[in-house]
Amino acid sequence: MDISRTHLIEDLNSSMEGQDVLFGGWVVDLRKLGKMAFLTVRDVTGMCQVIVKGDAMSLLEGLNRQSVVRILGKVQASKAKDFDFEVSAIELQVLAKAEYPLPIDPIGRLESDIDNRLNSRALDMRNQKTASIFKLRSQVLASIRETLIKRKFIEINTPKIIGSASEGGADLFSLDYFGKQAYLAQSPQLYKEQMTIGLERVFEISSFYRAEKSHTGRHLSEFTSVDIEAAMMDYTDVMDVLESIVVDVFKNTAENSKTEQQDIGHEIKIPDSPFERVSYTQALEELGNLDIKLEFGEDLQDSHLRSLGDKHPGFFFLTDWPMKLKPFYIHEKDDDPTLSRSFDLQYGYLELSSGGRRLHDPEQLKSRLKEQNLDPASFEEHLKTFGWGMPPHSGWGMGLDRLMTVLIGIDNVREVTLYPRDPDRLKP
Amino acid sequence: MDISRTHLIEDLNSSMEGQDVLFGGWVVDLRKLGKMAFLTVRDVTGMCQVIVKGDAMSLLEGLNRQSVVRILGKVQASKAKDFDFEVSAIELQVLAKAEYPLPIDPIGRLESDIDNRLNSRALDMRNQKTASIFKLRSQVLASIRETLIKRKFIEINTPKIIGSASEGGADLFSLDYFGKQAYLAQSPQLYKEQMTIGLERVFEISSFYRAEKSHTGRHLSEFTSVDIEAAMMDYTDVMDVLESIVVDVFKNTAENSKTEQQDIGHEIKIPDSPFERVSYTQALEELGNLDIKLEFGEDLQDSHLRSLGDKHPGFFFLTDWPMKLKPFYIHEKDDDPTLSRSFDLQYGYLELSSGGRRLHDPEQLKSRLKEQNLDPASFEEHLKTFGWGMPPHSGWGMGLDRLMTVLIGIDNVREVTLYPRDPDRLKP
Repeated sequence: MDISRTHLIEDLNSSMEGQDVLFGGWVVDLRKLGKMAFLTVRDVTGMCQVIVKGDAMSLLEGLNRQSVVRILGKVQASKAKDFDFEVSAIELQVLAKAEYPLPIDPIGRLESDIDNRLNSRALDMRNQKTASIFKLRSQVLASIRETLIKRKFIEINTPKIIGSASEGGADLFSLDYFGKQAYLAQSPQLYKEQMTIGLERVFEISSFYRAEKSHTGRHLSEFTSVDIEAAMMDYTDVMDVLESIVVDVFKNTAENSKTEQQDIGHEIKIPDSPFERVSYTQALEELGNLDIKLEFGEDLQDSHLRSLGDKHPGFFFLTDWPMKLKPFYIHEKDDDPTLSRSFDLQYGYLELSSGGRRLHDPEQLKSRLKEQNLDPASFEEHLKTFGWGMPPHSGWGMGLDRLMTVLIGIDNVREVTLYPRDPDRLKP
Repeated sequence: MDISRTHLIEDLNSSMEGQDVLFGGWVVDLRKLGKMAFLTVRDVTGMCQVIVKGDAMSLLEGLNRQSVVRILGKVQASKAKDFDFEVSAIELQVLAKAEYPLPIDPIGRLESDIDNRLNSRALDMRNQKTASIFKLRSQVLASIRETLIKRKFIEINTPKIIGSASEGGADLFSLDYFGKQAYLAQSPQLYKEQMTIGLERVFEISSFYRAEKSHTGRHLSEFTSVDIEAAMMDYTDVMDVLESIVVDVFKNTAENSKTEQQDIGHEIKIPDSPFERVSYTQALEELGNLDIKLEFGEDLQDSHLRSLGDKHPGFFFLTDWPMKLKPFYIHEKDDDPTLSRSFDLQYGYLELSSGGRRLHDPEQLKSRLKEQNLDPASFEEHLKTFGWGMPPHSGWGMGLDRLMTVLIGIDNVREVTLYPRDPDRLKP
């Protein structure tokens, strides 16, 4: 059975009148009218109308929507108001029959809830809104890489199976690795820092793992993280890199995804830049003005971030956090060692990214580990690299799934993740 | 401490004479000559000579090579035969001191064996040969994505934590997932097939996992796989896609990585295309001519592939394997159902990729599972998607690490993997 095609549907147009074309797709609609039938056929690139007459009519007997067909036909003018051309079938071939009823309505006329759609995720890709989300996601990945490569970042692949609990050890999945205890990495933090010693500017976009029993629209057990680390950059420098990545993502998709935005029902608006920069200390003041009293050093809870988000509804950096709230590898500020050279990128209340300048002095790093009740011995492999001439460096990690929710204006990361994993979901 | 720079070393040149520049890097060489010193400083982009005089000389006291410095200086003509300009230091800053002795010689004058280099992988990135391998790897990733996106493939991220043993169940790492048994994926096979139903052409480049006790230069427990799957393409179509990816990788790197090839000591040669296509049946004949007798249906062992590789030393496709040697999802040939629409891409004896046309009919798929003594019930989530109108489709997976070894002419995947994982290696 030959399955090739000469055209994708987006390649067809009214100027091709009289031309023979061979294409395929799934049947979105099928209406019989006497001795002929009107088929609406879709592929990933578009939709067109097909007229079927004669012998081929028998193939349509009992054929359900969503079945896959291949059509050899002639392009002709159409009288239908939705189409400026149509294809008159010369030969029709049924490549795959769809059953009836289907578990969800892939046209999206009947809204299915996210759980039902995830249970039938493949079929959900026939919903143009869902397909458009994942086309956009692919564009976003390309845009991020383009911006980073332009700035001389080198793409790396770090190990996800690690031998020691790297960042404190909470919420790690563990596994048996040929008789040894191993873990799934939560981030490439230590490896990307190490790489700055010779490659200077590195990035990775990959899956990472967190065994956290969260049940929110913002957390997954397996998530895609964009990570960078750069030698001889301070935290403000990598904030600039992050800002340009985000602005480029919005610019590129706003311009190059008109159809996808239409399918999703959301217009992508390019954010103003530079993003506002609000220090932790300022944030405490702003919260104080709202009669929310926090002591210096207290972490900002979800409710506090929501109040701040109301005041700063778009992208903004929340900077200079107290040292005691930060991981062991974060660098203090020169003028006030209780504060850190760190930041989060927020979109309103939503944290998208966290980063900062890192300690590069091995002695400082060792005493910080002890201060945080971590055992320097379990970081031996990492610490030794700091004796080899480790440049000062900064970096960040950004949740790609969260960025996607912001881009398309929805509030559940499951919508932008093909097969999400959370404490309750391990399949399909 | 300010750590910014105005220039990378590659940005400096002799036409900038008299200009002040601020840059950084690690000290590759340091020679004192009376009241002045000659420093050779390298960053990820290049190398230059720095002249130090006066007060700054005291900073060089006891300073070991590989320490990181930052220099404000003036570009001037050089009398040195290796440099056509040099920088006269106005200010010198030591950013990080390297210890002495170091565990390996990062200049590469003393060859260290692969195990020692892997144990000190970060420092190994100061070896220009190693750094160039990973710069090339980043270029290769970009080239593969470019070719695929041009051909309308959509980048996807499939889950690596899976609930059931997807391809037979051998050699899987297992883990506890919130009280349930889960596994690390060996490939995105089932997910990428499912996605062809709506996204049609998809690709993924990601880490996958195999709990195999192999100790060769070709196997790792965690490896990077390039995977594609495409609706309405037959196995020969995806072979063409694979061929163009490989040829593009060689073309792009041959042209854009002169320095890297020099550092590695290997000239990248663009392979002839189209690649030769040798069927399994032809391969048996060729082996027969060498007095190696194999029955139809026997698998080709390493020694057989080496004999074939001697006859076909470059890239070639080994096609039309017996059905009984192939996984349950592979499609038979129309004219001979004992043969399959399948292929491997070989480079001499080395298998780089494996792929084929897939079964898309759910009934055929079910009976094939039973024939192979697999339980259709454990593939329920996958099988149900084939009732929704699954288009005919084909695809392949390629080991990126193996492709890299071919590109740069070495024979151990550990050389091209930052932090390799094998049964004996779980760190750093």
